[in-house]
Amino acid sequence: MHFPGIAELASIRFSIRAHRRPPGQAPGTLEEPPGAFETSLSLRVWTEEGHVASEPEDLDPVREAISAGQRVWLNVTGLQNLALLREVGALLGIHPLWLEDMLNTRQRPKQELDPERRALFVVLQMAGPGSGLPLEQVSLHLKGNVLLTVQERPGDAFEPVRQRLARGDGRMRSGGADWMLYALVDALVDGYYAPLEALGEELDQLEEAALDRPHPTQLVRIRGLKRVLLHHRRALWPMREVLAALEREDRAGLAADTRLHLRDCHDHVLQLLDLVETFREVASGLMDVYLSSVSNRMNEVMKVLTIIATLFIPLTFVAGVYGMNFDPDVSPWNMPELGWRYGYPVTLLAMALIAGTLLLWFRRRGWLGGGV
Amino acid sequence: MHFPGIAELASIRFSIRAHRRPPGQAPGTLEEPPGAFETSLSLRVWTEEGHVASEPEDLDPVREAISAGQRVWLNVTGLQNLALLREVGALLGIHPLWLEDMLNTRQRPKQELDPERRALFVVLQMAGPGSGLPLEQVSLHLKGNVLLTVQERPGDAFEPVRQRLARGDGRMRSGGADWMLYALVDALVDGYYAPLEALGEELDQLEEAALDRPHPTQLVRIRGLKRVLLHHRRALWPMREVLAALEREDRAGLAADTRLHLRDCHDHVLQLLDLVETFREVASGLMDVYLSSVSNRMNEVMKVLTIIATLFIPLTFVAGVYGMNFDPDVSPWNMPELGWRYGYPVTLLAMALIAGTLLLWFRRRGWLGGGV
Amino acid sequence: MHFPGIAELASIRFSIRAHRRPPGQAPGTLEEPPGAFETSLSLRVWTEEGHVASEPEDLDPVREAISAGQRVWLNVTGLQNLALLREVGALLGIHPLWLEDMLNTRQRPKQELDPERRALFVVLQMAGPGSGLPLEQVSLHLKGNVLLTVQERPGDAFEPVRQRLARGDGRMRSGGADWMLYALVDALVDGYYAPLEALGEELDQLEEAALDRPHPTQLVRIRGLKRVLLHHRRALWPMREVLAALEREDRAGLAADTRLHLRDCHDHVLQLLDLVETFREVASGLMDVYLSSVSNRMNEVMKVLTIIATLFIPLTFVAGVYGMNFDPDVSPWNMPELGWRYGYPVTLLAMALIAGTLLLWFRRRGWLGGGV
Amino acid sequence: MHFPGIAELASIRFSIRAHRRPPGQAPGTLEEPPGAFETSLSLRVWTEEGHVASEPEDLDPVREAISAGQRVWLNVTGLQNLALLREVGALLGIHPLWLEDMLNTRQRPKQELDPERRALFVVLQMAGPGSGLPLEQVSLHLKGNVLLTVQERPGDAFEPVRQRLARGDGRMRSGGADWMLYALVDALVDGYYAPLEALGEELDQLEEAALDRPHPTQLVRIRGLKRVLLHHRRALWPMREVLAALEREDRAGLAADTRLHLRDCHDHVLQLLDLVETFREVASGLMDVYLSSVSNRMNEVMKVLTIIATLFIPLTFVAGVYGMNFDPDVSPWNMPELGWRYGYPVTLLAMALIAGTLLLWFRRRGWLGGGV
Amino acid sequence: MHFPGIAELASIRFSIRAHRRPPGQAPGTLEEPPGAFETSLSLRVWTEEGHVASEPEDLDPVREAISAGQRVWLNVTGLQNLALLREVGALLGIHPLWLEDMLNTRQRPKQELDPERRALFVVLQMAGPGSGLPLEQVSLHLKGNVLLTVQERPGDAFEPVRQRLARGDGRMRSGGADWMLYALVDALVDGYYAPLEALGEELDQLEEAALDRPHPTQLVRIRGLKRVLLHHRRALWPMREVLAALEREDRAGLAADTRLHLRDCHDHVLQLLDLVETFREVASGLMDVYLSSVSNRMNEVMKVLTIIATLFIPLTFVAGVYGMNFDPDVSPWNMPELGWRYGYPVTLLAMALIAGTLLLWFRRRGWLGGGV
Repeated sequence: MHFPGIAELASIRFSIRAHRRPPGQAPGTLEEPPGAFETSLSLRVWTEEGHVASEPEDLDPVREAISAGQRVWLNVTGLQNLALLREVGALLGIHPLWLEDMLNTRQRPKQELDPERRALFVVLQMAGPGSGLPLEQVSLHLKGNVLLTVQERPGDAFEPVRQRLARGDGRMRSGGADWMLYALVDALVDGYYAPLEALGEELDQLEEAALDRPHPTQLVRIRGLKRVLLHHRRALWPMREVLAALEREDRAGLAADTRLHLRDCHDHVLQLLDLVETFREVASGLMDVYLSSVSNRMNEVMKVLTIIATLFIPLTFVAGVYGMNFDPDVSPWNMPELGWRYGYPVTLLAMALIAGTLLLWFRRRGWLGGGV
Repeated sequence: MHFPGIAELASIRFSIRAHRRPPGQAPGTLEEPPGAFETSLSLRVWTEEGHVASEPEDLDPVREAISAGQRVWLNVTGLQNLALLREVGALLGIHPLWLEDMLNTRQRPKQELDPERRALFVVLQMAGPGSGLPLEQVSLHLKGNVLLTVQERPGDAFEPVRQRLARGDGRMRSGGADWMLYALVDALVDGYYAPLEALGEELDQLEEAALDRPHPTQLVRIRGLKRVLLHHRRALWPMREVLAALEREDRAGLAADTRLHLRDCHDHVLQLLDLVETFREVASGLMDVYLSSVSNRMNEVMKVLTIIATLFIPLTFVAGVYGMNFDPDVSPWNMPELGWRYGYPVTLLAMALIAGTLLLWFRRRGWLGGGV
Repeated sequence: MHFPGIAELASIRFSIRAHRRPPGQAPGTLEEPPGAFETSLSLRVWTEEGHVASEPEDLDPVREAISAGQRVWLNVTGLQNLALLREVGALLGIHPLWLEDMLNTRQRPKQELDPERRALFVVLQMAGPGSGLPLEQVSLHLKGNVLLTVQERPGDAFEPVRQRLARGDGRMRSGGADWMLYALVDALVDGYYAPLEALGEELDQLEEAALDRPHPTQLVRIRGLKRVLLHHRRALWPMREVLAALEREDRAGLAADTRLHLRDCHDHVLQLLDLVETFREVASGLMDVYLSSVSNRMNEVMKVLTIIATLFIPLTFVAGVYGMNFDPDVSPWNMPELGWRYGYPVTLLAMALIAGTLLLWFRRRGWLGGGV
Repeated sequence: MHFPGIAELASIRFSIRAHRRPPGQAPGTLEEPPGAFETSLSLRVWTEEGHVASEPEDLDPVREAISAGQRVWLNVTGLQNLALLREVGALLGIHPLWLEDMLNTRQRPKQELDPERRALFVVLQMAGPGSGLPLEQVSLHLKGNVLLTVQERPGDAFEPVRQRLARGDGRMRSGGADWMLYALVDALVDGYYAPLEALGEELDQLEEAALDRPHPTQLVRIRGLKRVLLHHRRALWPMREVLAALEREDRAGLAADTRLHLRDCHDHVLQLLDLVETFREVASGLMDVYLSSVSNRMNEVMKVLTIIATLFIPLTFVAGVYGMNFDPDVSPWNMPELGWRYGYPVTLLAMALIAGTLLLWFRRRGWLGGGV
Repeated sequence: MHFPGIAELASIRFSIRAHRRPPGQAPGTLEEPPGAFETSLSLRVWTEEGHVASEPEDLDPVREAISAGQRVWLNVTGLQNLALLREVGALLGIHPLWLEDMLNTRQRPKQELDPERRALFVVLQMAGPGSGLPLEQVSLHLKGNVLLTVQERPGDAFEPVRQRLARGDGRMRSGGADWMLYALVDALVDGYYAPLEALGEELDQLEEAALDRPHPTQLVRIRGLKRVLLHHRRALWPMREVLAALEREDRAGLAADTRLHLRDCHDHVLQLLDLVETFREVASGLMDVYLSSVSNRMNEVMKVLTIIATLFIPLTFVAGVYGMNFDPDVSPWNMPELGWRYGYPVTLLAMALIAGTLLLWFRRRGWLGGGV
């Protein structure tokens, strides 16, 4: 599995530019987000007997299916074509603020109910491939038999749902649009497991590496992982509340059984949050491991210096003493050793003795082992 | 975008002098805050058809507009003219404690309802340009068709609202004074995005700098950023509660649709708080990065010392030995090396060998690379 | 403003001796707290028209005023005269446990209601001058038109209230005993601003000092400030709950308008707690600044050592080499340099070259600047 | 008691692979978890008079016992035989989502009620032997007189319950299936004490070792212990909620007395969580102890270096001075000491004096003791 | 006051062996806890007029007093005699689970109500002498006029209550068994003040010592104090909830006035928890003080090394230069200084100048003072 390298991690910024409409703009104004992808439609119409999948150019097939009272899932990918989105809003009777929310990507996940229009609106964040970042906003709008989903980019976690619908698996065809909403939310939540799994493995590898060979680049990676975890947490935390609300209350158009299954999604989100919190603690601990590993290395360096210096300083002193130029001819008190027959070998022996004693002392203090 | 330098950041103190009336003064006493700006009025009167903007010298035009039952937004800038403010209070029937709150700047954001007078009072903190500091207190008083706003200084985040009113955009003219209140709160909340964006970029730059070239001034900047974030958090945290209260309860004069739109502001404040918390975590982590970066530098210094010292100490010892003055004439045991034909070159060679062995050992321990 | 020095701060102990009655003593037993001040009375009787202030020797004037149905504020200072306090308790019909609470100073702030006797009992902690410590317990007992306050020591934050009553300011005379209770609580809460202001300035100065010239005494001061902040927090935190309770519920004898004004006090306590929390975070950060500043100093010391040692160690080695006593007469291989015409100057030059190269290398690594 | 060594601890990864069905799979799909154990059945049927234990090959004996209205505990060990599990689900009328949950091991502990089927479903995590890891999921399904338990692996904490049933101890035979559920939950909760006890002893030993002889492997063990504690906490925290729910609400088929006994289990879980939190704090403190112990060691090393170097550096300098080759013949100012009668002994004496003074100074600073 | 020394503190383990019955044992089984003390009875029977204290051998006097409808306090000390305890349980009609709880010492404090039997059961932890550890479990069982208390060991905090009963102080004799329960709980809570006071003094002394002469044994003591505080917190935290429950709800047999007095105990527990939290913060800060004190010491050591080494390294180099053996006879360029008349004194002077300059530079950097 691909995991972001240092360079990529460093580029995970907390950019907030795309979060909001230009300051002071009137609410309900639709504006193309910067860097929006081309808009395309994907339509699924199904009955208990079969299902039709199409990629319509305009909304006519959708209009027909709705008038025919059929079960419809319309998926809009890319936010470039504002006119088309406005048309969708008009066709499905979407609240203007909700339409605006679909375009203002990087919203906090939330769910809202319009009791008047009997419509349910859910905003979620979908994890991407690899580390799961960047997250992609997915808006779901449910009204009667019609489910609309809007996503930022091509590529999503919904492919298995489409396949199950095509195969006619389980309750995919017998369920209504609310069941489809559950199936999509379930797939979206499941999409967080793979990135977190990758993060867990990355953490394990980093810990091992930090213990063995601490390196400043590990610091950068730890920081990067913490940022990735922060992003996941910011997405999952409010999703917990969203799912709790969907599961509990009598939400427009959600059958009792659908809500029971949404409780399962709720459990998964709690489990994911558990994991994120655990990983955050592990990542915080990693910093300690790294710092303590660096400090161990430093201690080794210092010990080598101390041992070498402490060993040779007394010897060098002895050599220095016998390098003094006191005149032995003046008096017998002046460095008579220099004139002794075995002066030099005895001095060397004395030096060896000093060094040996020091080494023994070092060994007794445990400085010569591999430990601290 | 301009961001405060070190000197400016250092001057962000937690001054609390302006928070309160002189201790022991009677409640409801109006007193000019120290350093108050000159007071000026700005009046907006609008109907569905058009709108009139004026900068009246006294309250007569306001009085007329109110008697005519028109929709009125009166903005008071600067708190120097207490007599005028008292007059405004009398004209609009404002509770004395609320009038005092308008003057006691740096209040905690709050909202209060006077069920008797059917008036709503909201105190918010507005972000300034640049880093958003110093914050400016904005008080909003809504009663029927009349909205009063009081701000400390010239310059505000409301310009786009004035332009939309002038252009007749959206619901600006069809909405009542409560819609105007929403529009102003919305603009005020939006005004926090730019400063936080700047803070985020500053954090990213600081992190890079701390990794590359740690310097004590970065410590000062990290501390400054944390203080700025503390200020933003202190302003935004209670605004969350204020907006939750406005959105939920049946507040005097707030139409259902206005409250629905205020929920949008609430979402934005939550998003801003998310960002502030994230940035605070990042800033805390920055300290770790800085300290670990400093310690890396230190380790390099120590390693250089250790390598050089460990390399030369044994060599110097050898040189010291052959500098001893034992008399080779006395006995053949006394430093015969000095008299050998190749004594000197062999000694130099031995020294080179020692140095080479040590260098090899250093390399094997990984001390000669660029890492830790 | 006076701020406690190191010696004073060090003496801020968490003494708990005075918190409690001797273990095992019967509840409701009155006992003079150790080191209690002499008891004195101060009486204020007022009507809308005027007011009388006196310092009575006994309770007769109080008894008269109460029988006459007048508005009465009796202030007791000092807890030495237990007989007098018992008499006061009997006169006003105070619950025995409350009477005991008045004597057991350093209580947690609390409020209690005796529905039977229709009496309200509030215990607060009042900040002293300077750093606000030691705190002083103030007990307020309100029953009908009679307000009793009991404080530990002479000197309090109530002087401005007395002056306003004397001047007949605002609602001081028209209000009842409950309004007086509000005015006193308001003055007491306001009394926390000055000490916190002083603490804020102290923190700013300490931060600057810790960056410039770190010194162990700063550590003691940081610890002292944290202790002072802990004391303030322990006093303010429960006062928040006390004021919330007074403001919300239909407390005996508190008029609706009085409760509205108490909400103002509640806001102030929240603001003070905000400040205390902010200061605590700043103080925690100060420790980091101090430690990092110390470590910077250390790094400088180490760098000087490393530069000097690294510079001279190779030179000393060279000098050592040419101090060896190999006999040049034996062979032309033995230190012929010693006999060269320019041997010495060339050697000196070589040494200068080595030193220069090392200095250049240090400069390129940025070790010769003032940074880390 | 066996406790995991370093190698084992290092292998405690936060693997999340087994947490979930393959992404996108339809809900309610049963799939064999990777590495599932062989499935085996164990049946207990009891009345007040006696009990029958059997290990049936198929479900026929279970079917008989149920039709006879007997009290039944069916235990399924190992999740390999999906067909058998589906058959069990059909026989007992288990909700498909619950059946799926039984297979998706490493669920968060939870309890759910199916009011329609009057069935109760509880998922718990059971501690294994030694350190308690890996945890094993146990699902309990109670409906009327029939209790089903599903566990991942052979070996469990239920042996004492089986023995008490065999011996006819206490209320084991007079109680219904709900009492059996309580007995099993109680045994499962009790099973956490031994691992935590072992962890506590390990912590105590580690602390002692870290103080005496800090070693990097201790760091690995501390990290390992923290991970083990995280796992226990993740299992126990939601069990708290599960037991609180079982105890409080009128759960299907739980007699009042059973619920009273479950409160006892609840108390035990709270006590276990207390212990886990305490151990986590102790483990965090251990890191401090380890680091401070390492730093103490380092300080000792540095002190030895400093003492030796500081002692010999001045002596070596003196020796160096008298090693200079100034020519005493040229002038009486050039090192006349070299020609003195007692030059050498006096020099040696001076050196001894210098060394003695330094040693005295060291002793006065307390550097020669064993302290810091 | 005696405070545990290092050895004692080190022995404060988190042993959990005694917390629980052997895993898998049937609930309601009574078993003698390991190391239980011998069981003895102590009986107090009182009326308004007088009271009788006795140490009965068996339960006959208790049975008589109960049948006579008298107010009875039966205290059981030591848990060795299971038969007697079972007899007590039968006599007073105690729930089997409660009887088991009395024996399972180190329970979490809790209170339970048996509405059927109209009995109240409270489990608390009593502080011992000195540091308050080991804690001792006290169980209180109140039913009508009969109060049973069970404690682990001889020696308790109830002596003052017994004396007040003997003296007939206050309401001791006029109150019922519920008042006796209050008096005992009050005495038990008061018993925590002395140990915490001792802990506070110990903390103050440790802080002073850590600043003056940091020593690793202080680390052990800090850790020991933190463990003691953890134990106190684990005992007091749930007692808060217990007292809140007793005070608020209409508990069996607790008169309104008794509950009012229990509120006083509640206040004390809150105060004690405040203290424990404060002490925990102080103890955490102590670690910082210790580490920073150690690091200061280290810095001093390093500075001494640096100053001595930096001072002598250049001087030794100079001496080394003039120890070189270049032959001055070969050319006038070879060390002519050696032949100068004042060569030696000038060299010594130059050395003194170098040393002086360096000392001046050190002084200007502030390295020669006592600071950091």
